[in-house]
Amino acid sequence: MTPGYTNDKAKIQARLKRIEGQVRGLQRMVDEDTYCIDVLTQVSATTRALQAVALGLLDDHLSHCVQDAVASGGADAAEKVKEASDAIARLVRS
Amino acid sequence: MTPGYTNDKAKIQARLKRIEGQVRGLQRMVDEDTYCIDVLTQVSATTRALQAVALGLLDDHLSHCVQDAVASGGADAAEKVKEASDAIARLVRS
Amino acid sequence: MTPGYTNDKAKIQARLKRIEGQVRGLQRMVDEDTYCIDVLTQVSATTRALQAVALGLLDDHLSHCVQDAVASGGADAAEKVKEASDAIARLVRS
Amino acid sequence: MTPGYTNDKAKIQARLKRIEGQVRGLQRMVDEDTYCIDVLTQVSATTRALQAVALGLLDDHLSHCVQDAVASGGADAAEKVKEASDAIARLVRS
Repeated sequence: MTPGYTNDKAKIQARLKRIEGQVRGLQRMVDEDTYCIDVLTQVSATTRALQAVALGLLDDHLSHCVQDAVASGGADAAEKVKEASDAIARLVRS
Repeated sequence: MTPGYTNDKAKIQARLKRIEGQVRGLQRMVDEDTYCIDVLTQVSATTRALQAVALGLLDDHLSHCVQDAVASGGADAAEKVKEASDAIARLVRS
Repeated sequence: MTPGYTNDKAKIQARLKRIEGQVRGLQRMVDEDTYCIDVLTQVSATTRALQAVALGLLDDHLSHCVQDAVASGGADAAEKVKEASDAIARLVRS
Repeated sequence: MTPGYTNDKAKIQARLKRIEGQVRGLQRMVDEDTYCIDVLTQVSATTRALQAVALGLLDDHLSHCVQDAVASGGADAAEKVKEASDAIARLVRS
């Protein structure tokens, strides 16, 4: 099954590559005894970058997987909506 | 237009009444010079209660307003999904 | 014991009064069948207002209760710091 | 200057290594067209892992850098507390 984010795969992978680089940057900062506050600032930036990936995935999921399931009037439409709501709750609480 | 939360109005109003009570409780705590940490604990609890109201509203919106707009194949379906995504982003970032 | 927020009590109470008003405003919106997205926007605004109260309380606690306990070299200094860290964790996760 | 997290460097680096692995795992999931909801679940888990690193760094900073600055009665004590409060605000809002 083609996931909702198919058209955005390159963009998502580029973001994840950048986040990987940010995490390795954090390792270097800790290795070099960087001041705590500067490391914390970089952790907050990395968290926000991850959040942006999540919101993009969610938007794609709503506008493709959920929308298609509802439009086709299939039995799984309600389940798709429930799944999306649960994912949103996890995101809000993380 | 009947909002998606129509069937849950009584439950939502009961939750909002409780949150109103929690906020007045915070005012009393501050008035009585309650220890900061105890006031902070109550603020976190009130924030989580508000979050639960938001997640309930979002679930209702997805499963009624968005789902109905998509099922009817109307021109506003895509707009409804976009609106929901923007509301989720605000919620995640608050 | 005088809490760390003593000098900011009037400001905190004014904020809490406004938040109480926002919560009652939410009740009116739901009562009047206001569109879900508009109610959600108001919930996010109320959550951010609560967050601002929490951050103010935490700043007062650190710069008075924790700072005084550490400066006086008392046995409870470490405990005060631990308490503050736990309160921060609850706040970050709410 | 020795940062507050010095005694926890090995633990922090181990966590950051794991988070790096989680981010690469996300790249693989996207590459393999994994269902959106499963990718979102992994993003939430990675966000929580980053949050745990941040809270650990903050606890170390409070109990070493801030506590030492206050105990030594230096002029930078108030500034250290202010820095910590600002870092907490960024964390709460990320």
